[in-house]
Amino acid sequence: MTTAVQMVDMIRTGQTTAVALVTAALDHIEKTDDDVKAWAWLDRDGALAHAAELDNLRKSGRAIGPLHGVPVGLKDIIDTATMPTGYGVAALAGRQPDADAYLVSRLKAAGAVIIGKTVTTPFAFMDPAATHNPHNVTYGPGGSSAGSAAAVAAGHVPVAVGTQTNGSVIRPASYCGVFGFKPSAGMISRTGVLRTSETLDQIGVFANHLDDVALIGDVLADFDPVDPCSFWRPRPKMLAGARDIPPVEPNFVWFEMPYFTQLADDARAGMMEVVAMLGGQVEQIDASSSFTGLVEAQSIIQSYEIARNLHAIGEQHGDIFSPKLAKLLDHGITISDQAYQEAMTLRNGAINYFVSFFNDFDAILTPAAPGEAPLFSEGITGDPIFSTVWTLCGLPCVTIPALMSQNNMPIGVQLVAGQEEDDRLLRTANWVIDRLNAGQ
Amino acid sequence: MTTAVQMVDMIRTGQTTAVALVTAALDHIEKTDDDVKAWAWLDRDGALAHAAELDNLRKSGRAIGPLHGVPVGLKDIIDTATMPTGYGVAALAGRQPDADAYLVSRLKAAGAVIIGKTVTTPFAFMDPAATHNPHNVTYGPGGSSAGSAAAVAAGHVPVAVGTQTNGSVIRPASYCGVFGFKPSAGMISRTGVLRTSETLDQIGVFANHLDDVALIGDVLADFDPVDPCSFWRPRPKMLAGARDIPPVEPNFVWFEMPYFTQLADDARAGMMEVVAMLGGQVEQIDASSSFTGLVEAQSIIQSYEIARNLHAIGEQHGDIFSPKLAKLLDHGITISDQAYQEAMTLRNGAINYFVSFFNDFDAILTPAAPGEAPLFSEGITGDPIFSTVWTLCGLPCVTIPALMSQNNMPIGVQLVAGQEEDDRLLRTANWVIDRLNAGQ
Repeated sequence: MTTAVQMVDMIRTGQTTAVALVTAALDHIEKTDDDVKAWAWLDRDGALAHAAELDNLRKSGRAIGPLHGVPVGLKDIIDTATMPTGYGVAALAGRQPDADAYLVSRLKAAGAVIIGKTVTTPFAFMDPAATHNPHNVTYGPGGSSAGSAAAVAAGHVPVAVGTQTNGSVIRPASYCGVFGFKPSAGMISRTGVLRTSETLDQIGVFANHLDDVALIGDVLADFDPVDPCSFWRPRPKMLAGARDIPPVEPNFVWFEMPYFTQLADDARAGMMEVVAMLGGQVEQIDASSSFTGLVEAQSIIQSYEIARNLHAIGEQHGDIFSPKLAKLLDHGITISDQAYQEAMTLRNGAINYFVSFFNDFDAILTPAAPGEAPLFSEGITGDPIFSTVWTLCGLPCVTIPALMSQNNMPIGVQLVAGQEEDDRLLRTANWVIDRLNAGQ
Repeated sequence: MTTAVQMVDMIRTGQTTAVALVTAALDHIEKTDDDVKAWAWLDRDGALAHAAELDNLRKSGRAIGPLHGVPVGLKDIIDTATMPTGYGVAALAGRQPDADAYLVSRLKAAGAVIIGKTVTTPFAFMDPAATHNPHNVTYGPGGSSAGSAAAVAAGHVPVAVGTQTNGSVIRPASYCGVFGFKPSAGMISRTGVLRTSETLDQIGVFANHLDDVALIGDVLADFDPVDPCSFWRPRPKMLAGARDIPPVEPNFVWFEMPYFTQLADDARAGMMEVVAMLGGQVEQIDASSSFTGLVEAQSIIQSYEIARNLHAIGEQHGDIFSPKLAKLLDHGITISDQAYQEAMTLRNGAINYFVSFFNDFDAILTPAAPGEAPLFSEGITGDPIFSTVWTLCGLPCVTIPALMSQNNMPIGVQLVAGQEEDDRLLRTANWVIDRLNAGQ
């Protein structure tokens, strides 16, 4: 599959055009999406017109953007001024935002072509979407960024954007056999994206190549004063990081976590092979019981905030939530301010713990999910717990599609690094990929 | 004087710190600004705190921004959330915006340190400010971006931001002996900047080195959907342009304009020397009388729009306008919609004329101002007419401090290029500088 980096190079050197790339993407989607169901909306005419404009710019010698002519998909909770944004909810299917989300303006300024909106689980929650796993359509893709993961895995688009409040980028990426990258909290603006949890919602990206998640990460990473989590500090250069070589062999830590009891045998065996391959570079530590408290704190924060954020939409639309989500919202609204504040204090302690932690380690090596994707017929999106602690702390995470289950389904290897050290994370990931390739 | 490019390099390699650079800038201002009066507001504590944060980031190995630790000044019509923005008007001296202008967020994200607000003429109009010309304080600095030009000329800051509706960047840059660069219309967002003319207002920058105007141009150039003039198209790489070498010797055109009757003898002689030095590369054309119509069209558009844009502030504050500005506003409000539309049609014709014009030429070579700066005692900011046509058409302009008047005052050489070809403009400017240096 042609990567986004290659596409831009081919456009720059005149080997292809944006119109050709977008046409090929749309045709491929038309042929295969009846089975995959990755797309909630496609804007064929708008995308082709935009691509033609980009081709004209190139022909007239104008500047080429870092994603010039690259077709991109956006999870359907990201507002678009020219396409409806339905949150994966039937009753909101025609919802038309007035303005693009901030991150959409970043993509456009980079020359990307937004070809459509990818399927999300309803309100980006745990109820499954209609999307199937392109690797094997009898399996589900995970959630909540189901369509973004599937669209990349199916080769519809080289890069797609999703969101992760708990494990909604890393888990579907692992299940679908693609790279998933959730940068540090505050790296990418959430203005114009459905808010479920102001503390935990984060933007993430999917691609078939490490360079591509880094490239789109660079494009999206930007200070937006309107998003209170967005920070003004200069952004790390992620593509440069992904292509960099560590000055010394990186050090990893393997936390044996309480929830590892849920890890499938083949996933554990695969991870242990990776540990063995990295040899003396991996220190194994039994995680203290305090990590269990963090999982509980995450649940309190997410439930408390989502209940309050979705309240207005419930008032307005009545019976719009699934029984499962309605139950969570009913529970969330009963959580006291004190319990919420205690959970936030626990979270702050964990964030502080990790500030100095990465002086000694380049990355945490950890599973991306409990194992292979669930069967589509199971009607679940899988357990996000293998992302919970890292997402709670806003740490940057990447999953590498490195392992296969006994059923020949993909399993990801997750790396987690220090806050705002996304370049170092990708540098380390690049080193791991090289090491794994050499070991094969 | 140390350039911004050098400052960032020195910070990157540990030869200096942001705190040292900002302290030096503030100390230099304290010593010299009683004479120059370039600054309307200084935020010593805020700037030093910000610089200290930037130094901590660097020490902890975090990303370095393209303007990391560089002290910057902003014309006092650009909103800042942490400093008042008084539009150069005594009655508005305490006006405190709620939010930063969009371009301020671009500077912060790049690691720049906003040390204060530079003096502007009242409402960025033609009435002079208190600022003197640092080259010789018996002269004025021009307007309306008087303080930004003077702060750079005095060596207070390596780069400063101003605005140009007619000639308010190029003219003071020429008078003060610094580089002035007004990128293409729509290149830099105006959200959060005093609106006088939605059609004509543009952002520009000042520096003592071509690389520096290009560097800050790159930082500021960004798509902002909130500004209706901001375009989504990928931005040219300006610093790369300024360091590039043209593939063939560039071609210039010299339009002999009707208003050149106002050109001072020493300015004309200097320009003719430049033409001679560039030799066969300059084609001379007598501008048709249609250019006179454009100057009139500019005046109609600016008067019509400023009268409507400043209407509310006049209602609110009563007697807040100078007699000269009040007269313009009274006139502007009487301009009919039809006269305005005719002027806009004329402008559109000129914009279309220039679309293909730059297929044959790399740049228009033209004076930046009628001659040396006016004496401070004259109480005028000089005539912007040498910028009028190019600004009306949104073309990118740069002035190079290349000439000296008989009174040993600076005179700029202006280059103008095609819309959105700012990289090519700066590449051509770099070539001209090399040629002039070789000729000396």
